[in-house]
Amino acid sequence: MTRITSIEPRLFAVPLDEVLVDAKHGAHSHFHLITATVTLEDGRSGTGYTYNGGRGGHATLAMIEHDLAPFLIGEDATNIEALTDAMDAHMHYVGRGGILSFAISAIDIALWDIRAREVEKPLWQLVGGAAKTCKAYGGGIDLAFPLEKLKSHVQGYLDAGLNAVKIKIGQPTEAEDITRILAIRDLLGPDRAFMIDANYSMSRDQAVSLARAVQNQNILWFEEPIIPDDYPGYAHVAREGGISVAQGENLHTIHEFEMALAQGGLGFIQPDASNCLGITGWLRVAQLAREHDVPVCSHGMQELHVSLVSSQPHGGWLEVHSFPIDRYTRRPLVIEKGRAVAPDSPGIGVDFDWEKLAPFKVR
Amino acid sequence: MTRITSIEPRLFAVPLDEVLVDAKHGAHSHFHLITATVTLEDGRSGTGYTYNGGRGGHATLAMIEHDLAPFLIGEDATNIEALTDAMDAHMHYVGRGGILSFAISAIDIALWDIRAREVEKPLWQLVGGAAKTCKAYGGGIDLAFPLEKLKSHVQGYLDAGLNAVKIKIGQPTEAEDITRILAIRDLLGPDRAFMIDANYSMSRDQAVSLARAVQNQNILWFEEPIIPDDYPGYAHVAREGGISVAQGENLHTIHEFEMALAQGGLGFIQPDASNCLGITGWLRVAQLAREHDVPVCSHGMQELHVSLVSSQPHGGWLEVHSFPIDRYTRRPLVIEKGRAVAPDSPGIGVDFDWEKLAPFKVR
Ligand SMILES: [Mg+2]
Ligand SMILES: [Mg+2]
Repeated sequence: MTRITSIEPRLFAVPLDEVLVDAKHGAHSHFHLITATVTLEDGRSGTGYTYNGGRGGHATLAMIEHDLAPFLIGEDATNIEALTDAMDAHMHYVGRGGILSFAISAIDIALWDIRAREVEKPLWQLVGGAAKTCKAYGGGIDLAFPLEKLKSHVQGYLDAGLNAVKIKIGQPTEAEDITRILAIRDLLGPDRAFMIDANYSMSRDQAVSLARAVQNQNILWFEEPIIPDDYPGYAHVAREGGISVAQGENLHTIHEFEMALAQGGLGFIQPDASNCLGITGWLRVAQLAREHDVPVCSHGMQELHVSLVSSQPHGGWLEVHSFPIDRYTRRPLVIEKGRAVAPDSPGIGVDFDWEKLAPFKVR
Repeated sequence: MTRITSIEPRLFAVPLDEVLVDAKHGAHSHFHLITATVTLEDGRSGTGYTYNGGRGGHATLAMIEHDLAPFLIGEDATNIEALTDAMDAHMHYVGRGGILSFAISAIDIALWDIRAREVEKPLWQLVGGAAKTCKAYGGGIDLAFPLEKLKSHVQGYLDAGLNAVKIKIGQPTEAEDITRILAIRDLLGPDRAFMIDANYSMSRDQAVSLARAVQNQNILWFEEPIIPDDYPGYAHVAREGGISVAQGENLHTIHEFEMALAQGGLGFIQPDASNCLGITGWLRVAQLAREHDVPVCSHGMQELHVSLVSSQPHGGWLEVHSFPIDRYTRRPLVIEKGRAVAPDSPGIGVDFDWEKLAPFKVR
């Protein structure tokens, strides 16, 4: 029994190197990083975090500060799963997803950091230990890039040692999307893994049409072709389009993942520990995915997910996301022979470089 | 075209007369009222609001202040539905329900206030006009009341002119719930409308068992017997328990309402304009309910919902909720001959008494 004595949240607005655009969220000039440092009565501490595309950071910080921190002070830090469920129940009326899922995630991850340091294990070992590396792909937020720039951007992933790439689709016309897909497949060669992501900008019919048009391009998955909520629609696109479909970044509760897996005919699932109740939530989704024989992948924050995806026997693909959170940590993501390598230090393996972050601190 | 020039949010923590308990949210000592006052370039303004059980108000205020207000300043206030959808899309990554739904609702209601004042109509006329009164019932948060106090509390509703009552269930044993239900049915007589509400504290089996045990008690509906997410479970409880089931206060997106109506076998639906995208969202749920032949009821903030429920041809029952927001307005809810009466003044009919609220202002 070791009590929590303080939870300190911080909010950073971290600028991107250039403005990035996808089909649904518009232009991103920066992202929000919200950290939560949990300190125990014996002086130990851990830091967790969540992020978003530059909207909602103040609300997330406010919920940690005004609701979750007061609720947790004095509680025993060791039973993480019970605390995470208790936070979720305590705030349920304003939750069932949304900001609550992000706020809880940051704290849950901090508690896991403490737990892993306590047992002196790296996260990948603590939560499964199946392997310490996993497949990885570059995920571009590249919808606004002209074709030549898109190609050089993809070439950049290959130069960085990655052998798999995802591009955004959702151009004004299907023909433009097809042109870009063919060009990138040509650049990658026939065998490298290649995914496409519409950020739920399409109707069922549009998605099926696009899928059929690129059926011979060896697309590994079609991510978020349609709105996240239309679970049967995902199965429809997979069946009628003859393509594997994937989602997860916009699902927050275990019930949403249950429905997505039961009804969606998903080929891959992509939970994000920053918005599905942290490592506790991510592992529950992983377990559910295993029961459905679906490889568990990830969305965003590669510096943390590398440990989670690697640890699972049914680990799928790690997204190397375009928000470079790992640039502000002591160990940016390591790629070796096309695979991402989990950190071996005790804890979650994500230590922020607070000096580097300082210029972007908002609160 | 009239542009929005400012949106001013305020947060109040309003104490309750006594601590109120239900089966899932624990003890309430106060509620949060979050108001949003929208001002236009021509000087006109309107005020909307949302509320919660005393958790999440700071996050709601932060989202209005830091995300939604900057997004709306300069926009045309007249096309409310498009603005509400635009806010929802803009914030989608941290939304699909949760705090976002509450924050948007407050602003949407403010815009409706402006619209109704502009055309000099009361809300009930503007949004349907089917009637200006509706059925109403007293909704107690009375789980912790000993039986004698429960009875006198229910008698208080009858003395106030109401002819229908809902009580909380979810006592430690089913036998205790049954005792209380029988006692209240006895007090009400055989014909008055009587509802029960478990605040999703039961399993499917527990809910079916309780429903069967009180089958001969003429229960109008069994509210939230199980978790809101288990849509097919609602149909199961209705069918196996031989009882009408209801939910809505914990559903935030139109997709959730679609699933609940399509799969839940609901006898009644209870959207809350404070957390399902305001009046715009409530009217969409009402339309959907009409297509499913389900009466549209309400949850909370009776001073506003009286106009909405009255306006609909398939309007059901107005909940007279235990958070007395209307006590802090210029026109507390009016009950005549057992029915609630919608205000006739232009606008939404909810004018806050800022002086009365002043002692409870948090921000
Ligand atoms: Mg994506
Ligand atoms: Mg209720």
